[in-house]
Amino acid sequence: MKNILCTAVLISSMMAYGQQNEDSLQFAKISTEILNNGKAYTELRDLTQNIGHRLSGSASYEKAVQWAAKELREAGADKVWLQEVMIPVWERGKESLQIRTRDGKWKPIKMLSLGNSEGTGGKDISGEVVMVHSLEEYEKLPADQVKGKVVFFNYPFSQSFVETFRGYSDAAKYRVNAASLTAKKGGKFAVIRSLSSAFDNVPHTGGMRYDEQYPKIPAVAIGTAAADELAELLKSQKITLKLNSHCGMKGEKLSHSVIGEITGHQDHEVIVAGGHLDSWDVGEGAHDDGAGIVQSIEILRTFKKLGINNRHTIRVVCFANEENGVKGGIAYGKAAKENNEKHLFAIESDAGGFAPRGISMEMDAQKINQIKSWANLFFPYGVYNFEGRFSGTDLYPLHDMGVPTAELVPDSQRYFDIHHTEEDTFDKVNRRELLLGAVTMTQLIYMIDKNW
Amino acid sequence: MKNILCTAVLISSMMAYGQQNEDSLQFAKISTEILNNGKAYTELRDLTQNIGHRLSGSASYEKAVQWAAKELREAGADKVWLQEVMIPVWERGKESLQIRTRDGKWKPIKMLSLGNSEGTGGKDISGEVVMVHSLEEYEKLPADQVKGKVVFFNYPFSQSFVETFRGYSDAAKYRVNAASLTAKKGGKFAVIRSLSSAFDNVPHTGGMRYDEQYPKIPAVAIGTAAADELAELLKSQKITLKLNSHCGMKGEKLSHSVIGEITGHQDHEVIVAGGHLDSWDVGEGAHDDGAGIVQSIEILRTFKKLGINNRHTIRVVCFANEENGVKGGIAYGKAAKENNEKHLFAIESDAGGFAPRGISMEMDAQKINQIKSWANLFFPYGVYNFEGRFSGTDLYPLHDMGVPTAELVPDSQRYFDIHHTEEDTFDKVNRRELLLGAVTMTQLIYMIDKNW
Repeated sequence: MKNILCTAVLISSMMAYGQQNEDSLQFAKISTEILNNGKAYTELRDLTQNIGHRLSGSASYEKAVQWAAKELREAGADKVWLQEVMIPVWERGKESLQIRTRDGKWKPIKMLSLGNSEGTGGKDISGEVVMVHSLEEYEKLPADQVKGKVVFFNYPFSQSFVETFRGYSDAAKYRVNAASLTAKKGGKFAVIRSLSSAFDNVPHTGGMRYDEQYPKIPAVAIGTAAADELAELLKSQKITLKLNSHCGMKGEKLSHSVIGEITGHQDHEVIVAGGHLDSWDVGEGAHDDGAGIVQSIEILRTFKKLGINNRHTIRVVCFANEENGVKGGIAYGKAAKENNEKHLFAIESDAGGFAPRGISMEMDAQKINQIKSWANLFFPYGVYNFEGRFSGTDLYPLHDMGVPTAELVPDSQRYFDIHHTEEDTFDKVNRRELLLGAVTMTQLIYMIDKNW
Repeated sequence: MKNILCTAVLISSMMAYGQQNEDSLQFAKISTEILNNGKAYTELRDLTQNIGHRLSGSASYEKAVQWAAKELREAGADKVWLQEVMIPVWERGKESLQIRTRDGKWKPIKMLSLGNSEGTGGKDISGEVVMVHSLEEYEKLPADQVKGKVVFFNYPFSQSFVETFRGYSDAAKYRVNAASLTAKKGGKFAVIRSLSSAFDNVPHTGGMRYDEQYPKIPAVAIGTAAADELAELLKSQKITLKLNSHCGMKGEKLSHSVIGEITGHQDHEVIVAGGHLDSWDVGEGAHDDGAGIVQSIEILRTFKKLGINNRHTIRVVCFANEENGVKGGIAYGKAAKENNEKHLFAIESDAGGFAPRGISMEMDAQKINQIKSWANLFFPYGVYNFEGRFSGTDLYPLHDMGVPTAELVPDSQRYFDIHHTEEDTFDKVNRRELLLGAVTMTQLIYMIDKNW
């Protein structure tokens, strides 16, 4: 009995070893293919430099739709289609913010209206600045000290978190709520310190929301250096800010997410990899989220190129409208439900095209543990962190339907220096870092396709 | 007995837990201090932009010596001194490489003479190009096919390695030996494809060596894009290259490494942290190795600022002449021996100021295992890789004396895009990545100071 047991253990560990070895060879093939022949970097150059930023509703977004469909076909997709999505149309237009100090002269401050914000309708609106450093401080402020004024929320992005996403989450409520908080106490418009890990004069835009109870007043962001200067000036004098802007929501429009897939040979269960095709209307949307788009296309290309005989359908989704509405993600989830599609797994890359460090997962403990049991395979690729507890914004509708979802976790140090700014450009993306992110996603999908 | 044992186990694990907890709090203090108040980034801006590149023997290196002494004093060193080092003086001077194709016209190619190479003495030297892709291919080439010609070693930097240092090590022999290999078969000068992970027109310099048996002919590097173009041209025609350069070794000179320390309260055993103060004579020496210098100074500053009562002496060494001679490292080892100093541990940062991923160690297995047993403490800081088996070049003399040595392992993806080029400038360094490297080194030195 003991002998039989020993033999059984031996055989099973030999099988496990053989399995591990086969997988580790496949991991190496995937990595070598992508690092040497990957197209993600040159595709990203094309998307960012020939199309550029591509906010929902813009002509450039529509160009990006055609571009993504073409790239998916060229990568070897068996089927490519556009999925209808009604998207909000927000437009920026001309805008300016000026400051008047003691000397009585007006000087411009570099600024960006926050996404979804209404503007001044082309009129000058000005008011004296009241600065607060936190919501707590703002809540204590009597309404009569805010009425008719401009509220400057100078809440700093915390440098203390090692993962910069924690600093971002911590500060995001200021961007989202500044306008309605200001309106609630009768303020004229809101200015926020940018959600930025850098110390520079680069304003960061990003989505805000209105509380329907209050007037829809404008909200704008200024760079961290400008915020520090303004705070310094306020120590010794009264400051007036004057805003003139044309931004605002211009209704809705029919547009599309772009989908391509390679059919599984075993069943019609679907594995999704994706990113969002839209970006804010500044910079080139290179890290956010051109990177996720080209990495996802790379997965499909690599499966075809290496002839990996996928059991399940591998589908790349280039989601519309993540930045200001998530309408693409919502439409995708709705269609999946209506079409009764079974989704095995979905992963998004939407945290920048930096060197990968891990996979963040939202799924049951058994599946998480299974993925963690593959950690040794990922370790030689610098991927070691399977601790996260979130997945891509576009995947929440799938997650809510019970689909196991995940997100690629790249190194986070540089992302919030450039996130939602004119600085999010192709030259900020490193070829190898971008490709390694695609390697990680392809390796994970290979394992899931094989084992789930 | 069982109860006593249980109690003993409980107490010991409570102590271990308490210990772990105390250390993890200290790790957090170090990280918070450096991420919020670290001076490394602004110091690096000063070094790179106000002094710039600083090759051994140059006036700017001497400025950097004074600069480092001042920064160490300002960081709170109890003692700062200069250590004498005889360093080689290599100078570049004017240089140009031109190509003549079928049309008979000469066109310039962007190039850099390799460090330590002799030049043409200001004369034009030209010859027909013979291209080889590997040493094996070159060895098979009869001498009469090389004699009077220019050998172009077009060996590609391998993209397949995940750790780019492996690609670099693999290709380094071409840079080091191209000149003497060419001279051995009677060639006029050697051209190498740059040791670069990028595809661009940026030449990478770096140290080469002469085999004293053969004439000291020139060796130069061209960018990877230029190498590809040259290879393409050679498919269909004969190509002539013409070199004119003034570089060469100009003897030796007395210079200095810069050392600062905070005295230990328990004994005079020394813990060293360092980088090299010299750089190649192009770019700003930002990642290589301004980063290692300012990170090392940050350690000292942080110990003082947090009032960590170090048992052992913590010494920062800014080594002279790593790039073309390692004379600073050798002089340091010699002085340590002569002065009968006991070194407990030494770590260098000389792989770029990128986000840290690990610690590479050269020491006995017991010490390696002890450091590995601290891995949980490092994990929240993105530091997980304790697998390496090398330590800093400047530390080899200490290592040879039996000192446990280590090197910080930052993310390697971007380093060899810019290493030894005009592109190694301050703007390529990210503030948080640089500071996190200093965090890791400070945390490790805190543990070693406390436990060894």
